[in-house]
Order: sequence, then C-alpha cells, then structure tokens
Amino acid sequence: MELREKTLKSQEIFRGRIVNLRVDTVLLPDQRQSTREVIEHVPAVAIVALDEKGDIVLVRQFRKPVEEVLLEIPAGLMDAGEEPLISAQRELREETGLTASHWEKILSYYSTPGFTNECLHLYLATGLSPGEVEPDEDEFVEIVSMPLEKAYDLIFKGQIKDGKSIIGIQYAMQKAGE
Amino acid sequence: MELREKTLKSQEIFRGRIVNLRVDTVLLPDQRQSTREVIEHVPAVAIVALDEKGDIVLVRQFRKPVEEVLLEIPAGLMDAGEEPLISAQRELREETGLTASHWEKILSYYSTPGFTNECLHLYLATGLSPGEVEPDEDEFVEIVSMPLEKAYDLIFKGQIKDGKSIIGIQYAMQKAGE
Repeated sequence: MELREKTLKSQEIFRGRIVNLRVDTVLLPDQRQSTREVIEHVPAVAIVALDEKGDIVLVRQFRKPVEEVLLEIPAGLMDAGEEPLISAQRELREETGLTASHWEKILSYYSTPGFTNECLHLYLATGLSPGEVEPDEDEFVEIVSMPLEKAYDLIFKGQIKDGKSIIGIQYAMQKAGE
Repeated sequence: MELREKTLKSQEIFRGRIVNLRVDTVLLPDQRQSTREVIEHVPAVAIVALDEKGDIVLVRQFRKPVEEVLLEIPAGLMDAGEEPLISAQRELREETGLTASHWEKILSYYSTPGFTNECLHLYLATGLSPGEVEPDEDEFVEIVSMPLEKAYDLIFKGQIKDGKSIIGIQYAMQKAGE
C-alpha cells in the first residue's frame, strides 16, 4: 500500500517566534481527502553531559505549556545555518557554562511526528570544564548535578518527565552497563 | 529563584481538530515580559507490545509533518474522559487487532514541553491474541513485527526515529537485560 499523502492545498494560519502553524489538505491512500494540522518548528539540540564522577548535568526550567518546573538535560534551538554539533556546544556553554573535550553523537529523532516536524539531535559530552553561563534573555534555569543512576530512577518516579531527557538518560545508562 | 511565569494575557489563535494554538504574555522572573507560544494537544497513549517470541509489534505510518513513512510503536489519542489504560487497550486493538492479557504502565512523559502540553502514557503489553483491525477513517498503517533487539539497533541506524518508540524500545531492552 502506498502510505504517502499528497498535499492538495496548504494554508498558513500563524507565523510565530518559535512555531508556525499550517493546515494541509491531503489526498489519502483511498483517494478521499482529509486535513493535517502541522506545527513547523526549527530543529533543536540536547546534551547528556557527564562529569568524571559519572554525574549528569541537568537544568531546572519552567515550561509554560505544562505549567511546571521540569528537570531536563540542557537543550536549545539551532540557529539558522548552524551545524548541530556547534549548536550543542553553544547551548551547553550558554545554559551551564560548561565546555566539553569529548563529543559523541547519540541519535537524531522526531519529538512527536504526529503534529510537528521538530527534530532533536542528541549528544553525549564528557571531559567537562566549568565557565560562565550566558542564558538567553528570556530563559531562567537552575543547574543541578546528580548521579546518572539517580536521574534514571527519577524517570520512573515521575520526576523527570521530559522526552529528550528520558531518551538521553536511558542511552547513558545502557552504555554504562555495557 | 522563583522560576514560574505568571500569565498576564492569553490569546487564542487557532482551534483545530488535533491542536489549539494560543499565545500567552508572561511575567518573567526578572519582572520583564515575554510571550510564549503554546500548542494545546490532548494526551496520547503508546504501547510496547511484545509477543511470546520477544518480537515487538510496530506500525508503519505516513507522518505529514515530516513527510516520511515512520516505523513506530502503536499509539493514538485519548478520547475525552477515557482512562489511559482503556485508551491503550483500544488503540492497540484498533491499530493492530491485538488484545493483551497483561498490561503494565511504563511511564508518562511530555513529548516536547518547550512548546506543547502533549503528555504520552506508555504501556507494556504482553500475552497477545490476534483479532480484527479497526483503523480510524483517515489512518492507514502497516503492521510489522521484529525481534526487540533488531528494533533497538534500528534506533541507532536512524531507521526508528520517533520519540515515544525510542523511549519504549529502550525501556524494553533495559528490562530484558535485567
């Protein structure tokens, strides 16, 4: 079966700072029509930063959409034309002040492809050196370090509930067990 | 530091089938103002379904936002007033025809809380029995089963790149190794 859906019409609804919204009219595999609401979002990067003790660096940050302060791995949006690794190095430095001597790509993934094209590039950073933080002007974060095993436990206690952080911590735990 | 942001104003931009969009004006911790673009999305469920051979049941589905056919674990939106476990049992049955004798909650998480409140509830389903599929009228999926280890390898080969699927498969692999 041909699963792809041809776009018959595309209507822009909103163009914002972070997201754009459009509604596409599509031709379904059975030749009927339907609509798809699509949130366009720039790609993002996220970093599993592990220090020499095996502690992971996390940030506490208020997230308006869920009205909660969440515990997450450092992350941020890519600048236009920027390579993902460069974005990851920049975001880690801006949010936590840290630089890392060793960088390893974990994977790239779609956060929730049913309604958005947001793609995240995950990196593992080790060999950390401290420095000055330079947060974005509307970004307020607190830095928290903890043993990787504790962060893994917090996933299943419902205290770490951000998708990119869960993927990154699961990866680091699996790798630590090898 | 108080990280929470008080909402000063909330403007509805779009009310759709799957998403709503609003723009909130917020008071930042430093008393300046900013705006937050928020995508409202109903909660969803996703299911790691493992058969007695240890194969995982996946679905191939076209995802308009990324213009790709993706390999994912079965998933779907919760109906209004529905309990997450009931949604998960319904979605597994509708998408794959399968019923399961054993259900275990894995975790709940936010797919990408920087811009949406979408929450996903993940379940592990075992003791599978086949039945008739009943897909949504604008949903076209192909069912694919494969060894869990193969699905795990596909994550790092970039052939499984959906967030909920990566979390679920990593969980099942970690559990299988215990």
